[in-house]
Amino acid sequence: MDSEQQTPFRPFHDFRWDEVASMPYKEDGSAPFKAISRQVLFAEPQLGCELRYFEMAAGGYSTLERHEHVHAVMILRGHGQCLVGDEVRPVRPFDLVTIPSWTWHQFRATEGEPLGFLCMVNALRDRPQLPTADELAALQAKPAIAAFLGVSG
Amino acid sequence: MDSEQQTPFRPFHDFRWDEVASMPYKEDGSAPFKAISRQVLFAEPQLGCELRYFEMAAGGYSTLERHEHVHAVMILRGHGQCLVGDEVRPVRPFDLVTIPSWTWHQFRATEGEPLGFLCMVNALRDRPQLPTADELAALQAKPAIAAFLGVSG
Repeated sequence: MDSEQQTPFRPFHDFRWDEVASMPYKEDGSAPFKAISRQVLFAEPQLGCELRYFEMAAGGYSTLERHEHVHAVMILRGHGQCLVGDEVRPVRPFDLVTIPSWTWHQFRATEGEPLGFLCMVNALRDRPQLPTADELAALQAKPAIAAFLGVSG
Repeated sequence: MDSEQQTPFRPFHDFRWDEVASMPYKEDGSAPFKAISRQVLFAEPQLGCELRYFEMAAGGYSTLERHEHVHAVMILRGHGQCLVGDEVRPVRPFDLVTIPSWTWHQFRATEGEPLGFLCMVNALRDRPQLPTADELAALQAKPAIAAFLGVSG
């Protein structure tokens, strides 16, 4: 996105925006995820950060991952559940979620409707890590997290 | 805001958020503005940027100003009008507005209802400039801007 060419006004139309492309969430096969798209709303170099909109269809989920960089999230659409660290919480529009460094996190559209959220990040950031088998087992040892991940107890 | 003490989940309640203070928009007398409040939603140092929520009551307005730093705005609540450069546009929820460097801008709640918006900025930013009498006259020479500013033509 070139800030010189960015039009000042980009109207909203049903969770799409003028001049904003809907893109794949990640490269297929790079990590587990389901039914989720990505739109980059702001990425002007002068900002030093980006604002993205992610949306998952009912039953969809983001990758269970962690990384050094911090996420600042505002739910924008629908309802679902979110894992941060060892806590699973229901989320609804305009709720704020902070993902600290090196904290396991995942969003799931569990309520039979899409779940969409804004995510602010620094423009320079590290690649996410996926859990090892041992790390996943440790997470699943907590019943609330096992239920969230869809694992039978 | 200390990222070590930030709770991951801060629920929304009618355009207020748990653990987020509603603050004055600016120091009284520092610049012209009316009926506008500020809530800092995210300001973790690691992000390098901040996400603020500004809300003006019906008839309220932000300061007409410009600066080097860039604003990335998403309307969140209500309807109103926005000036960017020499363009005045109606805005409504989830519309995106980009304020480039050194561009005059102002938000106004002109539709008899509050107007609230998210504004993403770099954590390091310059102080805004107010228009000189000559700059204001040049802006008001455009009828759409004079009407927006509430100046009779």
